[in-house]
Amino acid sequence: MVDPLSLVKPAVRAQELYTLPPRTAAVKVDQNENPFELPEDFKAEVLRRLAAAPWGRYPEFVPRPLLEALARHAGWRPDGVLAGNGSNELIDVVLKTTVGPGVRVVVPEPTFTLYANMASTLGAQVVRVPLRADLSYDVDALLQAGGPERSGVLIVCSPNNPTGTAMSEADLRRLLASWRGLVVLDEAYQEFTRGVGVLLLAEHRHLVVLRTFSKAMALAGLRVGYLLGDPALVRELDKVKLPYNLNRFSVEAATLALERYDEVLRPSVERLVALREALARALKAIPGLAVVPSSANFLLVRCAWPPREVHAALFERGVLARDVSRYPMLGDALRIGVGTAEENARTTDALRAFSLARGGR
Amino acid sequence: MVDPLSLVKPAVRAQELYTLPPRTAAVKVDQNENPFELPEDFKAEVLRRLAAAPWGRYPEFVPRPLLEALARHAGWRPDGVLAGNGSNELIDVVLKTTVGPGVRVVVPEPTFTLYANMASTLGAQVVRVPLRADLSYDVDALLQAGGPERSGVLIVCSPNNPTGTAMSEADLRRLLASWRGLVVLDEAYQEFTRGVGVLLLAEHRHLVVLRTFSKAMALAGLRVGYLLGDPALVRELDKVKLPYNLNRFSVEAATLALERYDEVLRPSVERLVALREALARALKAIPGLAVVPSSANFLLVRCAWPPREVHAALFERGVLARDVSRYPMLGDALRIGVGTAEENARTTDALRAFSLARGGR
Repeated sequence: MVDPLSLVKPAVRAQELYTLPPRTAAVKVDQNENPFELPEDFKAEVLRRLAAAPWGRYPEFVPRPLLEALARHAGWRPDGVLAGNGSNELIDVVLKTTVGPGVRVVVPEPTFTLYANMASTLGAQVVRVPLRADLSYDVDALLQAGGPERSGVLIVCSPNNPTGTAMSEADLRRLLASWRGLVVLDEAYQEFTRGVGVLLLAEHRHLVVLRTFSKAMALAGLRVGYLLGDPALVRELDKVKLPYNLNRFSVEAATLALERYDEVLRPSVERLVALREALARALKAIPGLAVVPSSANFLLVRCAWPPREVHAALFERGVLARDVSRYPMLGDALRIGVGTAEENARTTDALRAFSLARGGR
Repeated sequence: MVDPLSLVKPAVRAQELYTLPPRTAAVKVDQNENPFELPEDFKAEVLRRLAAAPWGRYPEFVPRPLLEALARHAGWRPDGVLAGNGSNELIDVVLKTTVGPGVRVVVPEPTFTLYANMASTLGAQVVRVPLRADLSYDVDALLQAGGPERSGVLIVCSPNNPTGTAMSEADLRRLLASWRGLVVLDEAYQEFTRGVGVLLLAEHRHLVVLRTFSKAMALAGLRVGYLLGDPALVRELDKVKLPYNLNRFSVEAATLALERYDEVLRPSVERLVALREALARALKAIPGLAVVPSSANFLLVRCAWPPREVHAALFERGVLARDVSRYPMLGDALRIGVGTAEENARTTDALRAFSLARGGR
C-alpha cells in the first residue's frame, strides 16, 4: 500500500496548518471584521435578488457588472480588475502565475502568515525582511533582499497585518522605481487610511493591488476580494484563476455593497476610524500597555505582561482578542480589533481591570 | 518601466484562456447543470438561515456540520473530507500539494480541460493518454504512461467529461493496484451512475475522490465541491487549501441540500437518468446522429455534419448545446445536456428538423 504522505511535497509537510480555534465571545475583536453589520434592508435586497436567481445554474463566466462597479469604485479600468474568492485566492493566483521553484519571494516580517506559506508551497525561495524596531517598513532592506537585479515577487501589506503600520507613498514610489520584479501591494485595510496603490498603477505596470470586502466592506461572510493591475497582466492572471470562483450570493452582495457604499459603508468606515483613535487613547492611558499607531481597524498593543495571560483575562471578561505573540518582534503583543463604542468600552474596562489587578505596572 | 508580461511564467503565457461566451437560450444544455431548480421552500429556508447570520463575520474556520453531513452522505469519515469552492479548487489544492516542476501528471484525452492547464501552471510534465476509439479508458496505456515506477499524479474523470464514459470498478481496481503515485478520481457526475470511488478509499490510501454540488445536486450557482481521502493526506491538503474558502451562503445551502437529499435530490437524479435514456433513444433515431452511451447527465452526439453548423442551427431554435469538436477525437461531436422532458423534446425536434433539412444523411 502506498503511504499517502510520501506523495506530499516536503515544503508542504514542513508547514504548520494555519488555523484558528473555534471560539467566540460577546466582544469579538480577533479577526478585524467590521462590527457594524449591514442594515436589514441591504440584506433583504440581496436575498430578494438571490431568491430570483437560478441556483442550479453556474454564475456568469465573467461577472461583468461587478467588475465594472469595482473599477468605478476604485478608479481603475474594468479590464484591469479581477475578482476572487477573498483576496487570498488572488494572492494564490498571482503567485502561481509568476512563481516557480527558486524564484525569490520577499515578504516583510511580521506580516500576514499566508504569503510565505503559499510561496513555499510553490517552491519559492522565501526571503523575510524584518520591519524596523518601530514596526515601520525598511525600504532599503526590502530592496536589498531583491539582490542586485531587484527581481522576484515583493509582497507589501499596507496597512500591515498584524502591526497596523502603513508604507508611505514616498516609500512605495521608491520601491516601485527600483524593483524589477512584481510588487504585490495588499491593501486589505486601505479604506481606514486611504490607500494610494491605485494611484500608482498607471505608472507602474509591475504593481498589482489587492483589496477585500472582508474588512471595511463588512462582508467577511461572503468572501470577495479583488485585484487591480495592468490589463495585460490581468489577462494572464485570469488564465490561472479558476473559472466560476464567485458564487451568486457573493456577486449579488458585493455589487449591492458598491451601489450603497456612500450611503452605508463610507459612514461606517469613518466611524471606525474615529473609534480607533478613541480606543487608542483609552488604552494608552492604561498602565502597562503601549499602543502602536494604527492605519487599520485594529490596534497592536504591547503589554507589560505575557500576552497569553492578558488574552485569557480578556476572554474571561467576554472579549476575544488575538494573541499575536508568536510572530517575530511581537512577543509582547496582542492585536485588538476596533469594535463598536460599547464593545471598545468593554475591552477598555477589561484591560483596565487586569492592569489594576496586576499592580498597574 | 518593467514589462509585466516578462514576469509571467512561460507555461502560463502558452496557455489559452479557458472561457465560455456569455450566451443563453430557452433550453440551456451546455453546462450539464441539473435543470430541476430546487423547490421554493428549499430556497426560502436557506434565505431564512442566511438572513439570521452575521454577514460581516468570517464563516467558521472549519465548517464542521457540513463536513460531517458530507461524510454521512458519502459513507466516509469526517476527518477524511475537505470542502472547496467548487471541486476545481480542490483539484488545484491536490496538485499544489503534490506537484512541482518535472512531476508527471497523467491525464486522459479528451477530458476536462482544466486538469492539464492547472498542472502545466505548476510546471508539471503533463502526459496525455488517449481514450480508446470507443471513448472507453485504456487502462494499460494509463499505467504505461506512469513509467516503470508508475509514479506521478494520475487524474481519472469518471464518468468522463465530455464523453460521458465511465471507468469500470474492475479497471479502477487494476489501476489502483499498480499505480504508486496519487490517483485523483473526479466523480463530478457520480450520482448518475453510482460512483464507486468511495468504496475503494479504505483500501487505497493513495486515492482521492472529488465530487461536486454543481451537477446532480442542482447548486452550480453556489460553488461547492468536496474531496474524500485518507485523513493523513487530507490534513496535508488542508494546509494548502485557503482558509475561509466557503462563504456563508454556500455552506447553508449545501448543508440543507444534504438534509433534503432523499426527499428532493434523489428523485431529481432518478428522473434525469430516465430522461437521459429517453433522449438517447430519441436522438439515435435521427438520421445523421450517433449517440455515445452515457453514464452522466449529458450525451456526446456524433454528427454527420460539422458540429459548428449543428450547434448554430440548435441555437437558432432556442437550444444552447456545447460544441466540443475542438477536443481531440471529437471533431464530429456535440455535447448535449439532459434537460426537462419539454426541453429534451425541443432539442430533439430541433435536431430532427436540421437532419431533415440536410437530407437526413
